[in-house]
Amino acid sequence: MDRKPLETNTVTQIGILVHDIEKTAKAYSEFLGIEPRFVTTGTYEEAETEYMGSPSKARCRLAFFTVGPSLELELLQPDHEPSTWRHDLDKYGEGVHHIAFVVNGMKEKTMLLQRNNIPLLQKGEYPGGRYAYFDGTEQLKVVLELLEND
Amino acid sequence: MDRKPLETNTVTQIGILVHDIEKTAKAYSEFLGIEPRFVTTGTYEEAETEYMGSPSKARCRLAFFTVGPSLELELLQPDHEPSTWRHDLDKYGEGVHHIAFVVNGMKEKTMLLQRNNIPLLQKGEYPGGRYAYFDGTEQLKVVLELLEND
Repeated sequence: MDRKPLETNTVTQIGILVHDIEKTAKAYSEFLGIEPRFVTTGTYEEAETEYMGSPSKARCRLAFFTVGPSLELELLQPDHEPSTWRHDLDKYGEGVHHIAFVVNGMKEKTMLLQRNNIPLLQKGEYPGGRYAYFDGTEQLKVVLELLEND
Repeated sequence: MDRKPLETNTVTQIGILVHDIEKTAKAYSEFLGIEPRFVTTGTYEEAETEYMGSPSKARCRLAFFTVGPSLELELLQPDHEPSTWRHDLDKYGEGVHHIAFVVNGMKEKTMLLQRNNIPLLQKGEYPGGRYAYFDGTEQLKVVLELLEND
């Protein structure tokens, strides 16, 4: 593998797929003693979601908990449109889906990961930035998410 | 659930089960651009490992990478003695196994979690402290590890 393709070694999110985000967010809220920040990903027109190279109307309800100086725990409840969220929730059930890194230069980083046999799964836009998921399971045993904020 | 039973909301480790720790540690070392710290858990006499209420000779090879101001990524390659590591690696394959929190008062915290229907799976000693794994999958969708340092 290329050395340090992302130019960072800071994990900023742990993403956990769930069936019922209200119920699991309530459990985490009690367990951690903190309140989550809820977000719903945008419409196709806003998010321009692509999953496995094709446009998808998939949307996802998210709940973020701050669990460290630069770390969030993210719960994700996807809808039933095609996405890496729905695929993995159906295939593997609830549990950790990905770890995330904040990067600069999403296009260049995407090319670098793909050159290192870490394929792009899904990408999309959010207000103020964009994300992409990559299949790191063969080499790193996890799905990776890259986040780029403008 | 009792509110904030651990008295912390800082996640300090992400634990990932692997079959070949040398190979996966090399991939992470290149990917993150940093070197791991390797550790092997103690013998039964040292670690006093208990899994599902019974003594176990299980040992585990570990590799720690610093991935944030207070966060480590931990790779775990267990041996074939009974343990939550071996059970989950055989049942679910490679991937994220647990998230960890550092606590004070392991005995009290263990009682509190069990009272909240988060059962103890495994515990043991390490030089300078002790760990315990709990089955948080029903409510929190992950296995939890508590760490107490003397």
